[in-house]
Amino acid sequence: MAGAAPSEEALRRALAERQTAVDAQAEAVRSLKASGAKEGVDAAVEALKIEAGAAARRLQAAVGSGGGAAREEMRQTVVNTLERKLFYIPSFKIYRGVAGLYDYGPPGCAVKSNVLAFWRQHFVLEENMLEVDCPCVTPEVVLKASGHVEKFTDLMVKDEKTGTCYRADHLLKDFCKDKLEKDLTLSPETAAEFKRVLAVLDDLSTEELGAKIKEYGIVAPDTKNPLSAPYPFNLMFQTSIGPTGLSVGYMRPETAQGIFVNFKDLYYYNGQKLPFAAAQIGQAFRNEISPRQGLLRVREFTLAEIEHFVDPEDKSHPKFVDVADLEFLMFPRELQLSGESAKLTKLAEAVLKGTVNNETLGYFIGRVYLFLTRLGIDKSRLRFRQHLPNEMAHYAADCWDAEIECSYGWIECVGIADRSAYDLKAHSEKSGVPLVAHEKFSKPREVENFLSCPQRKT
Amino acid sequence: MAGAAPSEEALRRALAERQTAVDAQAEAVRSLKASGAKEGVDAAVEALKIEAGAAARRLQAAVGSGGGAAREEMRQTVVNTLERKLFYIPSFKIYRGVAGLYDYGPPGCAVKSNVLAFWRQHFVLEENMLEVDCPCVTPEVVLKASGHVEKFTDLMVKDEKTGTCYRADHLLKDFCKDKLEKDLTLSPETAAEFKRVLAVLDDLSTEELGAKIKEYGIVAPDTKNPLSAPYPFNLMFQTSIGPTGLSVGYMRPETAQGIFVNFKDLYYYNGQKLPFAAAQIGQAFRNEISPRQGLLRVREFTLAEIEHFVDPEDKSHPKFVDVADLEFLMFPRELQLSGESAKLTKLAEAVLKGTVNNETLGYFIGRVYLFLTRLGIDKSRLRFRQHLPNEMAHYAADCWDAEIECSYGWIECVGIADRSAYDLKAHSEKSGVPLVAHEKFSKPREVENFLSCPQRKT
Repeated sequence: MAGAAPSEEALRRALAERQTAVDAQAEAVRSLKASGAKEGVDAAVEALKIEAGAAARRLQAAVGSGGGAAREEMRQTVVNTLERKLFYIPSFKIYRGVAGLYDYGPPGCAVKSNVLAFWRQHFVLEENMLEVDCPCVTPEVVLKASGHVEKFTDLMVKDEKTGTCYRADHLLKDFCKDKLEKDLTLSPETAAEFKRVLAVLDDLSTEELGAKIKEYGIVAPDTKNPLSAPYPFNLMFQTSIGPTGLSVGYMRPETAQGIFVNFKDLYYYNGQKLPFAAAQIGQAFRNEISPRQGLLRVREFTLAEIEHFVDPEDKSHPKFVDVADLEFLMFPRELQLSGESAKLTKLAEAVLKGTVNNETLGYFIGRVYLFLTRLGIDKSRLRFRQHLPNEMAHYAADCWDAEIECSYGWIECVGIADRSAYDLKAHSEKSGVPLVAHEKFSKPREVENFLSCPQRKT
Repeated sequence: MAGAAPSEEALRRALAERQTAVDAQAEAVRSLKASGAKEGVDAAVEALKIEAGAAARRLQAAVGSGGGAAREEMRQTVVNTLERKLFYIPSFKIYRGVAGLYDYGPPGCAVKSNVLAFWRQHFVLEENMLEVDCPCVTPEVVLKASGHVEKFTDLMVKDEKTGTCYRADHLLKDFCKDKLEKDLTLSPETAAEFKRVLAVLDDLSTEELGAKIKEYGIVAPDTKNPLSAPYPFNLMFQTSIGPTGLSVGYMRPETAQGIFVNFKDLYYYNGQKLPFAAAQIGQAFRNEISPRQGLLRVREFTLAEIEHFVDPEDKSHPKFVDVADLEFLMFPRELQLSGESAKLTKLAEAVLKGTVNNETLGYFIGRVYLFLTRLGIDKSRLRFRQHLPNEMAHYAADCWDAEIECSYGWIECVGIADRSAYDLKAHSEKSGVPLVAHEKFSKPREVENFLSCPQRKT
């Protein structure tokens, strides 16, 4: 791009060259000094040093750890204000709190209540969706069918001496980011390697993740003790239903399963017609290994989810025209893979070109855009990013995230996933109750569209 | 009372007398027949039998099992309609459900959402209460301090062969009620004994309850197997917080504790002034031993609670005048103990006489009356009943329930309790953080006022 700033790689290369020049000249000076020569040499070395220093500062600015400090300071100011005004409060504060649990105080409750009322108005009422309200306590059989008992895990490592637990991918991510931001002496090759690791982080197997941790010599951040090999930890809070102690239950990790198991009743309620959508607002629970980033990764939060059931052979949407002309930042796979940025795109064009697979998916992307901007989100800090194949949840066939740029970077706030018929099929098989729509359609298909408040697990 | 129907005891006595007369005459007839006499005797016995039959029918009508059948039929019709229209749905129905867990379908969600919005408007906004929103997952230390870990239990018995669990008091209650309603041959003395047991049911110790079950020969209702001795079962769903498995947590059994632990912050937020009220709407969880009565006793439900913090030495309320003239059915302790019914009472009078302890308590009783009648509850089926000393929760100093008469009888829907400073004191001691108001008051005191939806455990 004409007039663009030099790339980080070019800056690293330039810095390395200057540094090499400084070192070579310094060596030359030492020989000259030893041989008695002196005039002008010191000045030349000084000039080289100044040039190297400038290159270092340019690199520093490019990798952003300078801006990071300002961002960190700004965030701390906001956090302090929000806590002082009781927008939110660390839960059970008088008992020194529990990581990942927060209360909303009076102004926080008012904001939450208004956001949820607007969500209900914008999605449920305006679209005549069928709202349901299911319990959080869920018997094991449901979450076995959905795949959560087996697959809803994060990889964990333990401090081998203290037993403190860490998320394996977080440690690797922090290590790479820290090196990239703070170690200006990294060779362009090593920097590229760290960047590659960051890009494929979600795609690493347990063994690969363990190997990288070993290779980089990553240790427990608090104690510097060695770490165990990574192993999967299920993120659901487990409990027992009823007095016998024999019936395993979990606190639901998402509200969607309550909709799926009611598919048959809702389909009849809707006059046995597709498409229709069902919605639910309620608590979800995730026993995060090491919650962080304030309200962004918490152990309990309110989710608002929509499941839209559509004929897989006709995914047109009669109201797509209402959103077709919207134009906003989209970040499809190809742009991500080629290292480009999100681009202003007209929704109609994205669907026409097949970037967004179909009208129904496109319609919900448009509706989410309207919801978020009407809530007051800055358009220039809002983008729709398509999941890369490796990062999709175990049930998803395609997925777009609405991401908002904040002091933590671009953060997923809404996920819009085509879950195919994964869930209905799974519950049909497990329960023996056929969850299918009218025979003239081969199979119903779900498009999911949910908003989490706060952040949903990616 | 003039013109009143004869009492159940008089009817039992009359029936027993007629039956004795029939038996005596039959015996006499047998002797007469043996001696050859016959004329008129059969007819006299027949007349006596008819009289005894009529007495039995009068008793039957008085103990109400005839009306019960009609009520049961009406209820079944309503339940069928509500389920068919998806007002509510047994949760996880395709997996044969879980006792005590229900979903709300679309119309049920609309009703719930409107009731909660009206509750927020009527109580929180109109009174400038401080709303909070705390997590359901609660660390053990909080519920140890509040007394729930030790005392939030029900007595349970087990089928000694199958291990099926039952609530001990339910079995004893069902046994006594069944006998009273269906066994017309009960002597007035035995009937009185069963009634006494029903009256003191909540007051029986573990041993006394066990002794009664043994004395009456009560067995497991499903199998007729013998039962274990009763033992306490904690009603909280237990879980583990964080990845180590070392940190015990529970799903909160009420939302109030989240308010108490935030007392200090809320008091400062309120400008360090008493009185003030804090409110919370959210899920509560109770692992009931044997849930029953449809939506009335469930394992997960939405609670709406208010904690009003007041100077214990000045419980006047500036807005009491607004509700003072309300007149409705009140059922104080004395009327209950003397076997009378609830009486239409003016709220001002009840406070003046000290039946209701103070203006603040009276104010909230009035506000709850307005809330419920504005929701559409029939005034003639709504009463405020004072707890008897034996039935109060472990934290309560005084308690009034708003009860609504439905097909299950009079059912508690709102509890208005003076919890004294029990909770604040408990959390101060356990956490070491003083939860007290300005020094010029000796001790803050709480008056609790909550509405559960559906029914709260009594």
